[in-house]
Amino acid sequence: MAIPELQQRLRDFVAERDWQRFQTPKNLVMALTGEVGELTEIFQWLTAEQSATVMSDPARAEHVRDEIADVLAYLLRLCDVLGIDPEAALAAKITKNAIKHPSN
Amino acid sequence: MAIPELQQRLRDFVAERDWQRFQTPKNLVMALTGEVGELTEIFQWLTAEQSATVMSDPARAEHVRDEIADVLAYLLRLCDVLGIDPEAALAAKITKNAIKHPSN
Amino acid sequence: MAIPELQQRLRDFVAERDWQRFQTPKNLVMALTGEVGELTEIFQWLTAEQSATVMSDPARAEHVRDEIADVLAYLLRLCDVLGIDPEAALAAKITKNAIKHPSN
Amino acid sequence: MAIPELQQRLRDFVAERDWQRFQTPKNLVMALTGEVGELTEIFQWLTAEQSATVMSDPARAEHVRDEIADVLAYLLRLCDVLGIDPEAALAAKITKNAIKHPSN
Repeated sequence: MAIPELQQRLRDFVAERDWQRFQTPKNLVMALTGEVGELTEIFQWLTAEQSATVMSDPARAEHVRDEIADVLAYLLRLCDVLGIDPEAALAAKITKNAIKHPSN
Repeated sequence: MAIPELQQRLRDFVAERDWQRFQTPKNLVMALTGEVGELTEIFQWLTAEQSATVMSDPARAEHVRDEIADVLAYLLRLCDVLGIDPEAALAAKITKNAIKHPSN
Repeated sequence: MAIPELQQRLRDFVAERDWQRFQTPKNLVMALTGEVGELTEIFQWLTAEQSATVMSDPARAEHVRDEIADVLAYLLRLCDVLGIDPEAALAAKITKNAIKHPSN
Repeated sequence: MAIPELQQRLRDFVAERDWQRFQTPKNLVMALTGEVGELTEIFQWLTAEQSATVMSDPARAEHVRDEIADVLAYLLRLCDVLGIDPEAALAAKITKNAIKHPSN
């Protein structure tokens, strides 16, 4: 499922529960922080090496996928309420970064 | 530009600068925190109403787009090093959430 | 109980559980993120007005106190492993900030 | 300088600049996220070993102290506006944690 379709599903999900009034840009930025905090809790006590094999345990792999999905969900909701195209924003930023950090 | 192509561009960007060794899952989760912190700084002193019109000023709109792009970039890098398909993960999570939070 | 005594109690708590090896500065910074995420989750859907009366409900007040305590605990642990005096660091920073942001 | 005196200095600092209206609990939680993000940026690409010697470089040590001070400042401001005693909250939480995680 591509990003625009995921955004549509998230938009419907929110509308069906009448949650739009909670989803101001400010609140969605906070929700993003909450989800990044949950993702961080999976990794905080792992060594770099352990973090690289985190997906080898099926239960933990599902936990990681779920937390990453939650971060992406709020990021897409934020883009939706702000009228930002996330893929276009990232393509433009990669171009800017290539100028800022030239490779050898 | 769709997600898989953005991931390829990010992968190339990192490889050309020989940055792969820094991009462990653990470090990428921290980089995500740093970028969410920068995004939060744009919104922290705004009222809910001000946050809803943040895109009306062109300079600030570009700042918001850039910070959202940075969050998305590290999220996609994290998915890449963990072997996670972000769009499939989110589609699966939306289905789970619909069961957890039934609409009326 | 003052900060140095709290730091001693936290140090003992960690030593008694043999958790020192996990408490690198890097890991403690991540733990701080996790706890700020949990604190954020209490406030994310509240209006500014609701956030100002969050302590009027006893159960929620205890939740807020606990999450603030967790943030402070990891901040003090981080100071401990880095050899930083948090009160001296803040006193110095207030002086710097007064120069950076003169009042009228 | 002890915590109550630091809180008084922060309170005066905010009042002299007429910033009280911005410092709702919700906004202060966001400001805490922003500062934890800045602290995280210092540590994100370091190995565990490098993170343990971060204070050996004087310029970087000052940067770490400043960012830790900023986190503590917003945490103390948040406690102030919520009427929470941070030292008492942490003492109570340590007692709770000792019950939750008994040592051997």
